[in-house]
Amino acid sequence: MSTATLDLTAVTAAAAAAAKVTAAASDAERAAWLTAVADALDANVTELVAIADSETNLGTVRLTGEVGRTTAQLRLFAKVITEGSYLEAVIDHADPSATPPQPDLRRILRPIGPVAVFSASNFPFAFSVAGGDTASALAVGCPVIVKAHSGHLRLSERTAEIVIEALASAGAPGGIFALVSGREAGTALVQDPAIKAVGFTGSIPGGRALFDLAVSRPEPIPFYGELGSLNPVVVTSAAVAARSRELAAGLAGSFTLGAGQFCTKPGLVFIPEGTDFAARLAEASKDKAAAPMLTERIAEAYAPGLKSVADQPGVTVVSGIVEQDSLADGAAPVVFSTTAANVLERPGELLEECFGPTTLLIEYSSQEELARALAKVPGSLTATVHAEPQEDISALVEQLSELAGRVLFDGWPTGVAVNWSQQHGGPYPATTSLFTSVGATAVRRFQRPVAYQDAPESILHPALHESNPLGIPRRVDGVLKLS
Amino acid sequence: MSTATLDLTAVTAAAAAAAKVTAAASDAERAAWLTAVADALDANVTELVAIADSETNLGTVRLTGEVGRTTAQLRLFAKVITEGSYLEAVIDHADPSATPPQPDLRRILRPIGPVAVFSASNFPFAFSVAGGDTASALAVGCPVIVKAHSGHLRLSERTAEIVIEALASAGAPGGIFALVSGREAGTALVQDPAIKAVGFTGSIPGGRALFDLAVSRPEPIPFYGELGSLNPVVVTSAAVAARSRELAAGLAGSFTLGAGQFCTKPGLVFIPEGTDFAARLAEASKDKAAAPMLTERIAEAYAPGLKSVADQPGVTVVSGIVEQDSLADGAAPVVFSTTAANVLERPGELLEECFGPTTLLIEYSSQEELARALAKVPGSLTATVHAEPQEDISALVEQLSELAGRVLFDGWPTGVAVNWSQQHGGPYPATTSLFTSVGATAVRRFQRPVAYQDAPESILHPALHESNPLGIPRRVDGVLKLS
Repeated sequence: MSTATLDLTAVTAAAAAAAKVTAAASDAERAAWLTAVADALDANVTELVAIADSETNLGTVRLTGEVGRTTAQLRLFAKVITEGSYLEAVIDHADPSATPPQPDLRRILRPIGPVAVFSASNFPFAFSVAGGDTASALAVGCPVIVKAHSGHLRLSERTAEIVIEALASAGAPGGIFALVSGREAGTALVQDPAIKAVGFTGSIPGGRALFDLAVSRPEPIPFYGELGSLNPVVVTSAAVAARSRELAAGLAGSFTLGAGQFCTKPGLVFIPEGTDFAARLAEASKDKAAAPMLTERIAEAYAPGLKSVADQPGVTVVSGIVEQDSLADGAAPVVFSTTAANVLERPGELLEECFGPTTLLIEYSSQEELARALAKVPGSLTATVHAEPQEDISALVEQLSELAGRVLFDGWPTGVAVNWSQQHGGPYPATTSLFTSVGATAVRRFQRPVAYQDAPESILHPALHESNPLGIPRRVDGVLKLS
Repeated sequence: MSTATLDLTAVTAAAAAAAKVTAAASDAERAAWLTAVADALDANVTELVAIADSETNLGTVRLTGEVGRTTAQLRLFAKVITEGSYLEAVIDHADPSATPPQPDLRRILRPIGPVAVFSASNFPFAFSVAGGDTASALAVGCPVIVKAHSGHLRLSERTAEIVIEALASAGAPGGIFALVSGREAGTALVQDPAIKAVGFTGSIPGGRALFDLAVSRPEPIPFYGELGSLNPVVVTSAAVAARSRELAAGLAGSFTLGAGQFCTKPGLVFIPEGTDFAARLAEASKDKAAAPMLTERIAEAYAPGLKSVADQPGVTVVSGIVEQDSLADGAAPVVFSTTAANVLERPGELLEECFGPTTLLIEYSSQEELARALAKVPGSLTATVHAEPQEDISALVEQLSELAGRVLFDGWPTGVAVNWSQQHGGPYPATTSLFTSVGATAVRRFQRPVAYQDAPESILHPALHESNPLGIPRRVDGVLKLS
């Protein structure tokens, strides 16, 4: 499927027309649309997983789980909008006695308008056609146009058919959802005046190019990009001393999971110098099988990526083989090692993401050196610390909090819970915004505030009616009330 | 005062160092800092107003009121952070029985880091050195570096002295606040790696140039610009029929207030064709005195601005004199008139802001034509409708809601309440973000979310401790709780 420019204009015009209907729809209606999509995906799980497996090599177990994650996500957003806090309804009553006199003012968040969503290669369901960006935009009343990922085009088309049919049969307006494909269509979408925001999950170069387009429009629009992440892990001396083998097993499981194709893969592991951890990790990694990667392009890029790390001065191979034919044989795990001093010397070369089952151990000689090396690590989705209870890690945790959107203790970053508290987004380049792309608050990306001054109640959204007919949390005259 | 590049690097480095202290400070401490600044400004009001009056021509009554607005604003933000909702604390407890098992996850908003604030010409207090951007950034724990406006440099320096002294005596860290001046310092500030966000109030060309710098950094940062606004007003036939004289008097008062130098000045007024409204407005405007403008540059730009409107085909002068010497004589009110059909023909020429006491009446012949002309109006801070109770204005209000951040009924947009519900920000070019620069939620611009997974309580912000020692509103396991 290729989308000509003329077609695209029709698609975005239909989305703009639908936006008027979706903005006026009630939360209950939109919740029903989301639920209908979730039900339809669940009903077609076998067919969808089969297509996805043929296109992505991810295997039916993982893919079936991912469909479950995707439909749970749609249902969470239905719950979020039903709960009502997401509207951030605020009422300040008039105060004629104030100096100056205060008008009646009522504020609410409204849908921003049609949203373009760029699918990810590595999550053909959860970050693709009916994934988190789509679900959170639809939830708050924004039509969505998805740019399919070339790595799973057939799945994208089939998923889109199911989504469109489910939305229509649940009463959603035509034009609320569309799928386009091809690089040109994606570029045109970001520049189309009807598009009011963009959600993107992908590479740094690709994402930055689209970000640059979005912000250089005559009317710049928010570009919510998740562009890559190194996900540093710090292991303390005490932790290595206490549980080196367990840590090595955990890390081996995490960096090889899904052939290392997660945006939360731990790509940098800071360990104290002079321990047995590298040997333990080599042992724990050696049985991890080679696995086929998502696409030919990704598989072909893995070995050169490994080589560019291996070629750096001061880098040694702890386990695995750099020169591999990942396309023919699957991607096999490789563990590298270097020193923090070396990272400080060539941060640009060593602190770069290598997509696939590989990680870089970085030996530090002191807390001070660790802090200096961490200061060179670009913004990440996650940062992890493994320490023992008696240690004072407050300064380290503070530094990691500045570096990442999620800070983990004694765990591994792969695995991202979909709930109210999740933060999947960190300082640039991890994301290009102050928001999350996973979890309840992801909806805020697609809302803009409007305040109504001295408005007749009949014209206001029910959330702002005096009697609170929706029974939702609101702030009234400065005081938060639950209903 | 001019700030060399070397000085600036020292200033931003000091801010970055202070950021560690301000981030760790408690809400109570930061509230005390804000209150100390407010108290100090109040204590020096006479001196400050005298300097401001000598630099801006705004008069002591207006300026004294503006100091009150500024200190009330500082105190509001102290209240906002004490209340605690602004942290958006969310706790999801672990659920080992879930598939997959859910970790304990706790999310909070943290300060983004040092913020650059560009002062406005037209509010030497409320949108300047100790204005809303500064107050909201300090409130959440971000150090601030203000770029002074050249129109009130002496006031800026004196205000900064008072702010710095008040902050220091209240126990705030050195480096938390600084003032720089000069165009080069401003440009360098936006590009400085230590600066993590920018607040700006000013012109569209100036703001867009800085926005472009902010988003094209290696690490792009949010640029919160308020860049100008036309503030369309729509008057219905029924409203004109019912109260033409009263509406004309209200409009005349609003567009000439403060010599028309408000970002919320009603610059476009849509009226039905064939009414007496223009004559009424001419009558109501004729006694409005000429007033000195803020700066020489602004005064010198007013007459050419008027002329560029007057020179457009199909534009007539309803009242006032286009060829005036605003620098010598003050800016005198001018009312123009044209048709919606003409606006549709030359939107680029007619829908441009003219800073000063002037407004453009636009006669519409039908609701349909009105809607088409409104669709050409760029994003605005406000949009106003004057209608009679029996009229169905829902479609019109919906269109105005898409156009502006604040929709007013039977009022005038000048006058911006500082409270929890305010939204001072609209679609581009009114603002470059989805946020407000006035009111409680302005703080969200300078916060970024971080989630802590399976963290020991001792390492967490008290807002995330199990027992809720701060007694603030939080969402726990999906349920919003007041304390």
